[in-house]
Amino acid sequence: MCRWIAYRGNTIALEHYVTSPTHSLIAQSIRALESTASTNGDGFGLGWYGEHPEPGLYREVRPAWSDENLRYLCRHIHSHLFFGHVRASTGTPVTRPNCHPFACGRWMFMHNGVIGDWARVRRRVEALIPDEFYGSRVGTTDSEAVFLALMGAGLDHDPISAATRVMSEITQIVNEKHEALRFTAALADGRSLYAFRYSANDKPNTLYYSTAAEDVVIVSEPLDKERDRWKPVPPGHMVVARAGRPVEVAPFLEELQVAAE
Amino acid sequence: MCRWIAYRGNTIALEHYVTSPTHSLIAQSIRALESTASTNGDGFGLGWYGEHPEPGLYREVRPAWSDENLRYLCRHIHSHLFFGHVRASTGTPVTRPNCHPFACGRWMFMHNGVIGDWARVRRRVEALIPDEFYGSRVGTTDSEAVFLALMGAGLDHDPISAATRVMSEITQIVNEKHEALRFTAALADGRSLYAFRYSANDKPNTLYYSTAAEDVVIVSEPLDKERDRWKPVPPGHMVVARAGRPVEVAPFLEELQVAAE
Amino acid sequence: MCRWIAYRGNTIALEHYVTSPTHSLIAQSIRALESTASTNGDGFGLGWYGEHPEPGLYREVRPAWSDENLRYLCRHIHSHLFFGHVRASTGTPVTRPNCHPFACGRWMFMHNGVIGDWARVRRRVEALIPDEFYGSRVGTTDSEAVFLALMGAGLDHDPISAATRVMSEITQIVNEKHEALRFTAALADGRSLYAFRYSANDKPNTLYYSTAAEDVVIVSEPLDKERDRWKPVPPGHMVVARAGRPVEVAPFLEELQVAAE
Amino acid sequence: MCRWIAYRGNTIALEHYVTSPTHSLIAQSIRALESTASTNGDGFGLGWYGEHPEPGLYREVRPAWSDENLRYLCRHIHSHLFFGHVRASTGTPVTRPNCHPFACGRWMFMHNGVIGDWARVRRRVEALIPDEFYGSRVGTTDSEAVFLALMGAGLDHDPISAATRVMSEITQIVNEKHEALRFTAALADGRSLYAFRYSANDKPNTLYYSTAAEDVVIVSEPLDKERDRWKPVPPGHMVVARAGRPVEVAPFLEELQVAAE
Repeated sequence: MCRWIAYRGNTIALEHYVTSPTHSLIAQSIRALESTASTNGDGFGLGWYGEHPEPGLYREVRPAWSDENLRYLCRHIHSHLFFGHVRASTGTPVTRPNCHPFACGRWMFMHNGVIGDWARVRRRVEALIPDEFYGSRVGTTDSEAVFLALMGAGLDHDPISAATRVMSEITQIVNEKHEALRFTAALADGRSLYAFRYSANDKPNTLYYSTAAEDVVIVSEPLDKERDRWKPVPPGHMVVARAGRPVEVAPFLEELQVAAE
Repeated sequence: MCRWIAYRGNTIALEHYVTSPTHSLIAQSIRALESTASTNGDGFGLGWYGEHPEPGLYREVRPAWSDENLRYLCRHIHSHLFFGHVRASTGTPVTRPNCHPFACGRWMFMHNGVIGDWARVRRRVEALIPDEFYGSRVGTTDSEAVFLALMGAGLDHDPISAATRVMSEITQIVNEKHEALRFTAALADGRSLYAFRYSANDKPNTLYYSTAAEDVVIVSEPLDKERDRWKPVPPGHMVVARAGRPVEVAPFLEELQVAAE
Repeated sequence: MCRWIAYRGNTIALEHYVTSPTHSLIAQSIRALESTASTNGDGFGLGWYGEHPEPGLYREVRPAWSDENLRYLCRHIHSHLFFGHVRASTGTPVTRPNCHPFACGRWMFMHNGVIGDWARVRRRVEALIPDEFYGSRVGTTDSEAVFLALMGAGLDHDPISAATRVMSEITQIVNEKHEALRFTAALADGRSLYAFRYSANDKPNTLYYSTAAEDVVIVSEPLDKERDRWKPVPPGHMVVARAGRPVEVAPFLEELQVAAE
Repeated sequence: MCRWIAYRGNTIALEHYVTSPTHSLIAQSIRALESTASTNGDGFGLGWYGEHPEPGLYREVRPAWSDENLRYLCRHIHSHLFFGHVRASTGTPVTRPNCHPFACGRWMFMHNGVIGDWARVRRRVEALIPDEFYGSRVGTTDSEAVFLALMGAGLDHDPISAATRVMSEITQIVNEKHEALRFTAALADGRSLYAFRYSANDKPNTLYYSTAAEDVVIVSEPLDKERDRWKPVPPGHMVVARAGRPVEVAPFLEELQVAAE
C-alpha cells in the first residue's frame, strides 16, 4: 500500500521530513496509521533534485527502518524538491527497480495505490507506453507502467493534461474489467510538483498537505500530532505547486470518480 | 526481540512448521502477538540437520515474509531436527552473520532475548569465549557470543552443565552491572534438542511446546488457535528432547531466577 | 554472458558439480575461461527437482563466490536433476527475478547468450508469450521472455517442437532487425533434460557434455583439466537426455544457423 | 586486497574520481591491474564530508560495478574531502559494517592490506581498543579494529603520533607471531587527509598520488594512462595533506620497515 512524502520549497536536508519527525516516513515504514498495510517494509526509495536537470535516486530492497545508509543520506543531501517512499508490495517482487520513486529524463514519479488486478490489466496498461519509453521499463510494477504511459502522453508538454488522459484511459480499462483503481501519486520535473488523489471503484488512499510560506510538503499521513497543520486533499483532487507560484488545490477527474461510485 | 521455532521428530518438510500454520513463523515475522516487537523484519534464518553431522544454514537480511527463496527451501528441505528464526534487532546491525541460528561444529543455537546493555557487558561476555572458539566469531551479537562461550564450556561433553555454568556467569555479570538478561534459547547437536526459558532482573520471554508421539515442536508463541495443544514452559525451566527419549521439562537455574526477582 | 551447469542422473549432492570441482561453477563466477565476460558476478541461481513435480529455486543478487548460503545448500541438497547458473548481465538489472534458472509449473529453464538488442526486439519477443503465461513474467530479461514463449508454444506437449518453433520465430525477428542471437540454454521437466547450442548472426557460446553410465552433466566450460572427458556440443545441435534413455546429440535448427552465416 | 581513492581539494562531484576516469575505481572493482586480487567485488563504500563535522557514508555488499545507487550518488554528492573503496575480502564476511570506509566521530578511515593471520592476532589487536571506543565496533574486520585502536591512541590530539604508536605495536604483534602486515590506509578528519604506505614482513601494497594546485588525489593505482601524473608513494612513507597547506610526503615507520626486511 505504501506511504510517501513530497517536498518543494527552500533547500533543506532530507532528514527534515524523512527521518526527524515524530511520525516520520521511517516511523511509518514500521507502523503506518492510515494504511491498510501497517508495515511498509518491502523496500524504499529517495529521489531528489540538485544541480542537474535529472534527479538522483537511492532505492533499496531492505526495510527503511534499519538502513543506516538512508540516515546518512537524509542528513547529508539537501534539496529544494524531493520524494521519499516506503513500499508495501501488492504482489510484484521486492527488487530495486520496483521501488519508488521512478525517474525518466527530468521527471520523477511515485505512487501509493493499485491499478486493478495487475495480472489481468497489465498488458492493456503496458500497451499505453509508446516504444520510445518502453526501453525505460526496468521493473515490473503497475506504478512504473503508469509513469511511462504518462511520459508517452506528454508530461514535458502539459503534465496535467497527460495525467488526465492516461488516468481516464486506465479508468476505462478497470471499469471494463470490473477492477478497482487507487491512484495517490506525485510527479515532479525539478521545478514543479503535482500530487493526485484519485480512485475508481474504490475509496482513494489518504493524502494531506501542509504549507508554510512558499514551502509545501505533501504526505500520505500526517508526520506529527499537530492535525491542524495537515489539510486533507479531497478525493478527485490534485495539489499543484508550480515553481514560484502559490500552491493550488484543484479537481482531478472528479467527474469520473463520482460516476464510478 | 525475535521469534523462533525448533522441531525434533520424524523427518518432515520444514514448511510444516515454518510457512504453513495459520500463525506460522512467517506470519509472526510481520505480526507477532506475544512479543514486545510485533514486527520481526530484521533478517531471518533456517538451520537443519540432514545426512552430515554439521547442520545446513540459510540466513538472509531481508524480512522473511517477502523471501521467495525461503518458501522454496521450506518446501524442498526435509529434516528430523530443524530451527527457524525471525529477527528483531536489539541494536546490532542487520547482517547475515548476526542472523540466527548460529552453527559451530555439529552444534546449532538460536536465541530470543537480550544480554544486558550489550555495549556495557560485551567485553566481559566475549572474555568467556576461549581462544579455540574466538576465531568462529563472525558476527557481533550477544547471542553468538553466548553460543561460543557455551562451546567453550563443553557442549560436546555435557550441554546442560555447560549452559548452567555459562548462564550463571552471565547472570553474575548483569547483576554487577544492574542489567537485565532474557535468555529464551534453543541448542541442538543433530540428535538432541534443548530449549531454555530463563531471565534475570526481568520477565522471561514466552516459550511453548507441543508433543505428538515422539515429535516435539518448541515455539516462541503458538502456531495456531488450538491453545490446548501448546503448553507453556515455566520460567526458569528447560525442555530436553534427547534422541530416542521422551521429552522432559526440568528446572534450569530456577534458584537464580527467584533470587533475582 | 553467464556460465551454467545442468545435471541429470543418480541422485547426488549439488556440491559435486557446483562447488567441488577444480574449475567449479563457483570458480567460474570469479574467473571464467571461455566466456567474453571473465567475471560472472551479477547474481546466481540454483534449481533442483526433489519429491515435488515443481523444482525448488535459490536465487540471489550477490556474487556466488562469497555466498555462504550457497555452500550450505549445495552440501545439503541432493537431486537427480539440477541446474546451477552464474550471471554476467547483458544490461538488465541485477535482481533476483532476473537471475536464472526460471521456473514455471514443472519446467525449469536457464540461458547463456543474448537475444539481439533487447530494447529493440523486446516487444516483439514478449508478444510471443500468450496471456496465459504473461502473468508469470516477474522479471525483465530476454531469457525469461523466451522461456515463457516456450511455455506458450507447448513445452508440456512436445518440448523440441516448441523450442524449434520459438527459436525460428526469434531468429526471424533478429534477422529483420539485423541483430545477433546466441542461445545456449537448458530446459528440464523433472525427468528429462534438453540443452541447446544455437546462434544466428554470431558464433554460438561454448557448450560441453560428459557422460558416465546413465549420468550426464552439461556445462558452459569444462570443470577440470581432463579435456577428454568433456565433449563439445557442435553448433546448431542439442543434447537430449530423456528419462531412462541414453543421451543423444542431434541437430537443432542447424539449417537456419548455416543460412545465417 | 581492495582498491581505494581519497581526495582533498576544491569541492567537486564524487563522480570526478569514482566513476568517470578511464580506469576509475568502478573499473578497478571488476579488473584491478596492480592488485593480487583483480576482482574487487566484495562490497564497496563511499565516505564524504559536507556541512557537518561527521562524514556521510554509503556502504553496500553488492559489487560496485552494478550498483545504480552508487552512480546517482557520485553524480549528485559534492565534497571537498571524500573516500571511495572497493573491497576484496581477505576472509571476514561480506557485510555492510565490514565495508570501508569506517567513521567514528569526525574521523574516517579506510584500508587496503592485511593485519597478519587475523584469527591468530585478532584478540591482541582488539585489546588495543580502549573501552571508550569498543562500543563503536560494529563489524569484525582487522581494518576496523586498527581504526578504533587509532581513535583510542588519540587521533584528535595528534594523528601522526597515534598512527606511529599503533602501527609500531601491531608490528611487534605480527613480528612475534611471524605474520605479515600490509597497511596502505587513509585517514581524514574533515579538514586534513593522511595516507600511509607501510608493511612488515611483506611488500607494501601500491600507492600513488597526484596534485594539481591545492587539490590532491591519492589512489591504489593510477586512474588513467598518464603515468607522469601519478607519483608513487615510497614504502614506509606517508602523504600529509593538511588543511590549507601544501602536500608533504614524509617517512612513516621507515626504520621499522627496513628492520623487518
